Amino acid sequence: MGSKLYLGLVHYPIYDNRKEIVASAVTNFDIHDIARCARTFGVGGFFIVTPLESQIQLVERIVHHWTEGPGFAYNPTRGESLSLIRISRAIDEADHEISRLWGKKVVRIATGASPHPKHIGFEFLRKLIEDQNNPFFLLFGTGWGLTREVKDSSDYVLAPIEGKGYNHLPVRSAVAIILDRLLADRHA
Amino acid sequence: MGSKLYLGLVHYPIYDNRKEIVASAVTNFDIHDIARCARTFGVGGFFIVTPLESQIQLVERIVHHWTEGPGFAYNPTRGESLSLIRISRAIDEADHEISRLWGKKVVRIATGASPHPKHIGFEFLRKLIEDQNNPFFLLFGTGWGLTREVKDSSDYVLAPIEGKGYNHLPVRSAVAIILDRLLADRHA
Repeated sequence: MGSKLYLGLVHYPIYDNRKEIVASAVTNFDIHDIARCARTFGVGGFFIVTPLESQIQLVERIVHHWTEGPGFAYNPTRGESLSLIRISRAIDEADHEISRLWGKKVVRIATGASPHPKHIGFEFLRKLIEDQNNPFFLLFGTGWGLTREVKDSSDYVLAPIEGKGYNHLPVRSAVAIILDRLLADRHA
Repeated sequence: MGSKLYLGLVHYPIYDNRKEIVASAVTNFDIHDIARCARTFGVGGFFIVTPLESQIQLVERIVHHWTEGPGFAYNPTRGESLSLIRISRAIDEADHEISRLWGKKVVRIATGASPHPKHIGFEFLRKLIEDQNNPFFLLFGTGWGLTREVKDSSDYVLAPIEGKGYNHLPVRSAVAIILDRLLADRHA
């Protein structure tokens, strides 16, 4: 079931702390933690979206180190997870790649820390993934989150993770929790 | 409910990749990500357990930066989460501190990536925390995990998070998922 789901970690377009639209730098821990979660839950692929040439090269170097370079000998399980990573210059480019692979339209879902007029619940999305045989592309914003335009133009927006009056989860933790809610076997 | 729960991130005693018992170095991202998850779910406190003087000083410096130093002006929500952090030289020392605070015996629960003869399920522990009015101390190992002795001497061992044939979650992601399973409001 997880193999229908693709993750996109978006570094542009996102907001910075002043609500301006920027391109963020890639964070090494995002790459490792999200790839390991993705592999744990059997996700189809993990797209790192950035238009910045320097950041593309950085990601390529990290992935190469762990999948083919000296990192693979040191810890082969890390390479197993990082092999899920694809790099795209834009959200649409990743979307087209998934669509070509499946020969089907991709259902695009944005995530975020605040409610959205068209947001859907976790159980609803879990059931959608179970029932429909098409690819789903789940977008996560870095920095201060996905732009309003990205959310408005997605097919769905997922409900935020509700905290006890504190609403500042790292994107890495949000990915872990959301994959668990959507894909984990129901636990006793 | 979450305020009955305390987290312990154990840097000694743990296993390294050769199953030898070592003290690991503190990872900056563990501190931030786990503190932010802890604050999100209303956890009572987050103990960083390390006997190494250099690591204690490092944690103190990081916490001070975000709770009172220049980091607080830059991003006050970060200080809000890092203020949950306590430092202890040993698991027992943290346990005594929680016990003194509550005037009650602490229920100690170990976690890990592999099954244990006495492991309990997530629903069982969730209910225990709901029903009992005493503190719970949930231990997470860094490196290659908590030692057998720590697990055997705990009151309970929590079941591992089941992956699809891949069993290498970062401790940061495991904490996020486990707190969500134990403490989140049931989502629709």
